[in-house]
Order: sequence, then C-alpha cells, then structure tokens
Amino acid sequence: MQTSSCSWLNQKQAEQIANDFGTPTYVYSEKKIRENAAACLAFPNAYGLTVRYAMKANPNSSILLLLQKLGIYFDASSAWEVRRAIHIGIEPTRISLSTQELPKDFASLVEQGVEINCCSLDQLERYAKAFPGSEVGIRLNPGKGSGLNNRLSTGGLAASFGIWHEFIPQINEIAQASRCKIVRIHTHVGTGGDPDVWFQTATESLKSLDAFPHVHTVDLGGGFKIARMPHEKQSDLQVVGSAVKKAIEAVQARTGRKLHLEIEPGNFIAANLGGILSEIQDETSTGKDGYSFLKLDTGMTEILRPSLYGAQHSFRVFQKILSEETASYAIVGHCCESGDVLTVANGDSETLAPRELPVCTIGDLIMIEDAGAYCAAMPAKNYNSFPEASEVMVLENGEIREVRKRQTLDQVIQNETPIKW
Amino acid sequence: MQTSSCSWLNQKQAEQIANDFGTPTYVYSEKKIRENAAACLAFPNAYGLTVRYAMKANPNSSILLLLQKLGIYFDASSAWEVRRAIHIGIEPTRISLSTQELPKDFASLVEQGVEINCCSLDQLERYAKAFPGSEVGIRLNPGKGSGLNNRLSTGGLAASFGIWHEFIPQINEIAQASRCKIVRIHTHVGTGGDPDVWFQTATESLKSLDAFPHVHTVDLGGGFKIARMPHEKQSDLQVVGSAVKKAIEAVQARTGRKLHLEIEPGNFIAANLGGILSEIQDETSTGKDGYSFLKLDTGMTEILRPSLYGAQHSFRVFQKILSEETASYAIVGHCCESGDVLTVANGDSETLAPRELPVCTIGDLIMIEDAGAYCAAMPAKNYNSFPEASEVMVLENGEIREVRKRQTLDQVIQNETPIKW
Repeated sequence: MQTSSCSWLNQKQAEQIANDFGTPTYVYSEKKIRENAAACLAFPNAYGLTVRYAMKANPNSSILLLLQKLGIYFDASSAWEVRRAIHIGIEPTRISLSTQELPKDFASLVEQGVEINCCSLDQLERYAKAFPGSEVGIRLNPGKGSGLNNRLSTGGLAASFGIWHEFIPQINEIAQASRCKIVRIHTHVGTGGDPDVWFQTATESLKSLDAFPHVHTVDLGGGFKIARMPHEKQSDLQVVGSAVKKAIEAVQARTGRKLHLEIEPGNFIAANLGGILSEIQDETSTGKDGYSFLKLDTGMTEILRPSLYGAQHSFRVFQKILSEETASYAIVGHCCESGDVLTVANGDSETLAPRELPVCTIGDLIMIEDAGAYCAAMPAKNYNSFPEASEVMVLENGEIREVRKRQTLDQVIQNETPIKW
Repeated sequence: MQTSSCSWLNQKQAEQIANDFGTPTYVYSEKKIRENAAACLAFPNAYGLTVRYAMKANPNSSILLLLQKLGIYFDASSAWEVRRAIHIGIEPTRISLSTQELPKDFASLVEQGVEINCCSLDQLERYAKAFPGSEVGIRLNPGKGSGLNNRLSTGGLAASFGIWHEFIPQINEIAQASRCKIVRIHTHVGTGGDPDVWFQTATESLKSLDAFPHVHTVDLGGGFKIARMPHEKQSDLQVVGSAVKKAIEAVQARTGRKLHLEIEPGNFIAANLGGILSEIQDETSTGKDGYSFLKLDTGMTEILRPSLYGAQHSFRVFQKILSEETASYAIVGHCCESGDVLTVANGDSETLAPRELPVCTIGDLIMIEDAGAYCAAMPAKNYNSFPEASEVMVLENGEIREVRKRQTLDQVIQNETPIKW
C-alpha cells in the first residue's frame, strides 16, 4: 500500500482547497521548500558553495522569492527564464544562464549582472566579441552520459549540451584571441546516490580544469536521486557531497587550486514540495479480463512526466466514505488521448501498470504526489483546451494562499486574431 | 533527400514571415484547409454524411471558422472545446461532444444545441437523469484496438474510452428506465489505408447496432493514415470510404436500417495544413564519432510529438547560401531537456536518428513540415518559460495574416499572485 510524502496536507485542507479553488490545483508546501533549501545549503564543500535552483523545474514566483530569501541562487536555462526571474524580483547577480539558445540581446542581461556559461563555440565567440577581455564561463560536455536513460542523458556523444571536450583547444583559441578568461566550468556529473560514482565522475570532470588555468568555480550539475515511490531511496546530500568535496580537495592537493563549488538542484528542491489535487470524476471498466479505470479531472495537461518518459508518482486518496478495502486501478487523465495515462510502467509509457489503492468513489479527491518539479513547468498545456490549473501554497502557519489563479477561457484565446472569412 | 509537402510556401514568403512575425511561428495554408475539407466532404456514403473536424487537432479560430463556412461540423473532446468553439462563433448545433470528463454543467451545453455522446455508464446516467425521454448518443469500446501502438490505441481492454461492449445490457437498462432512446453510436474503427481492414472493422462495429434499435447515426472515428514522410502512403478516402459504404449497405440489406454516417478527421484535415517556421540558431558537434547537431529556436515547446511518441516530421531548409551539398544532422530543440529532440527514430523517442539535409548555416530558416495537427494544440507550452509561438495563415491570394500573436512575458505570468515573504 501507499505511503504518503505529502503528509503535510490533511484531508480537511484538501477539501478546503478543492472547495475554494477547484480542481485540479497544484498544492505546494512552504515547509518543504524550507527543508529542501536547507539540505542543499548544507551540501559539504571544501572552498565555498553556491546553490543554484534550476528554475525550469518550477518557476512559480512565490517559490523563487522564498528561495532567494533563504540564500539560494538561480540557474536559468533560457533568456526567458532570466527575464522572468528579474521581472518578479530576483537579483540579476544571483542568476546564471546556461542555455541551448543564447538570445540576440544577451549582452543586456550580462550588463545587468547575469552570469553566462557559454554552451557552444558559437556562443563563446559571440560572448567574446561582445565582451573582449572579460571573465566568462563555459559548459563542457565531458564525454560521459549522466542520465537514467538515453533520453535523460545530458552528456556523451548523443547529448547536444555544452561544448564537446575534444574542442578544448578551440575554446582556448577563442578566449585568447579576445583576451577573455575562462573562470567557470559548468558540467554535468553522475546521477544517483552512490558516493563512489559521484567521486569518480567528479574527479573525471575536474580533470578538464587542467586546460583552464583561470577557472575558480565549478558547477557540477546532474541530478540527485529523488524518491517518488515508496521503494525508492533518495540521495543523501551529505554522503554525495562528501564524495564531491573529496574530489575537489584532491584537485587542491594536486594543483593548489581551491575551487568554489556550485550545485544546481531542480528536482531535489522542487519534486516533493507539492502535488496535484484532483477529483475522481469517473470510474469505468473493461470487464473482468480488463481494467478498472479511475478518470481524474487532470492528466497530461498538468503532468506530462508519466506520458513522456514513464515516470512514477504515488497517489493519495482522500476518501469521502472511509474504507479499508483496496482495489487495483489504472488511473487515466481527462484528455482524449490514449497516451494520457498516469499509472504507466516504470520507464515505459506504453504499458498500463495499475495500482493498489483504497477503494475509490466518484467525487473522492486524489493527490498526485511529488509533482512539484517538471509538472506545472512542463505540461501539455491547453491540450483539449483545458485551462492552466491554479496553484496554491500551504504556509507553515496553516494558511492556504493562492499563488497562481486558474486560467480563463478568454485568456486561452486572448492572442487570437481570427480572420473573418 | 527530402521532398516538400509545404510547397505552398516559397522562400520569399518564409523570409517575410520570419521578418514580420519572428520565429518560431506556425504557418498555415488556406489552400490546404480547403483541399482537405473537400476531400473529407467527398467521403463515400450510402445514406448521408456528416464530417466532424476533431478540433483537438488544432483549435485555432481561423481554421474552425473557415471549416464551418465550408460545411464541416465539429467533434469536441472536452467541454472547454465546446465553450471555446461557441465563443468564437461556431454554431452549437454543429458541435458533438465525446469526452472523458463530462462537466457538471453539461445540461446547459445540450440546451444550446450541442449533441453529447455519453462515454461511460455514469455519464449516461447523468444525462438520462437530466433529460429523461430524450434522444442520446453513446460511445462504445468495441473491444478491439485501433491504434498504431498501445499508446495510440483507442479501443480494446487497455483503452478507457467509451463504454465497454459487455455493458450493452446496462446501457439499455439506463435508457429504458428514463425512456431515453440511444440514437447515435460513436466508435473507433481501424487506422490505415487498407480497405479490407476498414470493411472488417466497420462491419464488426456495426454489429453492436443490433442491440440498439433506435440508432440512426454512426460515428466511425479512428484515424486515416497520414503521410508525413516521403516513404509513407496517405489513405485514399475514396478507397477507404467505399469500404465503409459497403459495410453500411450490408447493414441495410440485413436489417433495413439506413444509417447516417459521421466521420471525425483531425489529422487528415489539419496535419499537412501547416508547419513550424524556425531559425537554426546554433550548430554543434560531438566530434568525428558523434553527431552534428542543428539547434532550432523551437522544440518541444511547439511540437511535442517526436518526444512523446517518436513521431516523424520532414524538414525543409531555406538556405541563405544555396548549396547542393548535404550533411547528416541531428536536430534538437531549444529546451534544456535531453528529450527535446526533433529527429528521433520512428516510434522510439529515446534514439537519435539524424537526417540527410542540405548543408545548413546558423541563421538559415527551417520548416518543420506537416505540423498542423497536435502541435500548436499539444505542446509542452511555456517550458523553460518560452512563450507561446505566433500563428499565421497564408491566404489563397498570397496575403499573410497573423491569426495568433506571440505570447508576452507578462502574459506568461499574468495569473501569478506572488507571496511577499
């Protein structure tokens, strides 16, 4: 049976949210944000640490502003994220941009204090031309994958992120021609919780620094393992961090360089800070040889991860009629799309994987847990013309605050300029 | 090498669109809409035909309004689509709703003239309670799949769409108890272009009508095969339709019933009516054993189909410097997401499948072809905070009209109500 990681929400609060704001609604926890930020800020380090929240995981303003107050910096993955963050009150000097698409007006962002890690030779050339003689960061592809599967990999031959390590001579040519100094290296290392793997990949990545004598800061991206299901084990940042610290101390012992460490948690800060509160709006069956389906009033319009890469989420039912009985349910979304399934096999979005849950009734509320990261930020928004869901924050004092209003139909079509045929 | 199915767009027009409206921009063709509508309206039929455009494929108002003018009706997959269509000027009596989520206020839609096909026993009970003694439609799951793979299947044990065929007795009980008559059956039949398969699946589906003596209309959903790649063969509606007509005539011969036919093309009308005009904003490489990457200023934020189910699209390059040379490119999107790849293997979104294209230069325009359906309608909108793209229509007289303006940053965050921590 399920265990619940959104135990910060009780049934009365869930019913109040459904009543006051409707469903589906993303529900976030101030307490969890504070806990996760504190865990990251305590990441072991030898010569200084900057924690950058990967804001693509969840760019809600209330989350960003609280994180800033707690001492967190920001990793932006597009100029739009940079502009968005500045617009809502994030200090430009707290933002670092590593992006696939460097915008034409990147210079104005730098002039405001944003740091850029150039992610391709062309980006570096453009930067060096705009700011000759300056200090600059680069993102390197160290040649090894770091994801759970090919799709999620951010390094290696099949990854388009960062400058391929064989082009280090070209990097230095561009830098020298414009008297720029490479001072920051951004690279992705291992995913998971094994400290030996972290030590090895960090050590391997740090070797590339030998070619860049001016580097004083390394941003070791790459995911910390998040537990979204009861059987999963979350990375212990103290354990992983100790391995990274050891690797950085080894660089100091070997070369005398004292590297400042940056990490960029996205999932680790955002994944378990919230869930999606939904109503079970129908129950159907394909007979005794088939499946029992729960149909929610949410789906890929709010959470694309199961359909996109077979991601696993837990479900917590708030029963109107309490019962100890359980049943096996396939849970599907509300879109007219056969891929809109919430209980898929792990890593296999083509296969139904029913869950054992308390017996449900139409009208029961259900929480999709650990849906704080890459859900509101990355849904198939407006598919079937469903509007963006609302978002609320449960404060530490128990108060529930709406932090994003539900989209209206007028807003869905506000930019249309129809032809009068 | 590529062939082009967006040959209605010339290089000068592409450059004008990029200049006037920026990139990425969805580009639609009035001519293609008219051609596709005409092909559907000519679908062979024995006793009458209604063509319902599955508006989830692309709900842009200018497309819907032109289709209405051409005599097309509409299939909505959510109440939001119904409200949207009515709001922009579609006659309610031209709209039929088959949805996974029947809204609480469905009665008001029916009172405006919208037809509903009840897709579950619970939906039918609610309908019968609200409108006792009325005529109503149902959607049946005939027990056989009809998709290209499990995910795309809309029938069979693993599909949650429609009422499972074994529950036909319960359907009739509910109908009789409320003196309702089941007059329309909506069901999905084969996909593809083989007329024998269409005849068999249509015949099989039509057998269920024996249990429903009042049915006068059958909606045979299910996809017509669309050719998006040079080697693919598109369904010939005349051939497929003749098979369906034969099946309907066989029902008449056997039972005397003259069935009105409805079809609901989505892809067939929308897929090739447009593409996504994008700029090549970077080119990178992972060395001689790796890949050459083209990085576009679009990606899963405008077209999710390759990432979601390994869909194949052609690309047309508008070179600034004309060259006959070709090269092999992996094409990726602008999101900081390893799954944001546009050239994936067929049906396998985890594997890069480079394409042979004319040699490209940063700044060249590139058109993602046959991106009229399930692209603007179903993207990972606003991921990495990229704004919704603009949409333009190329009119038959050559004029280019903007039909949806690009979203602004203010609009992306317009519903946020940030907490002042």
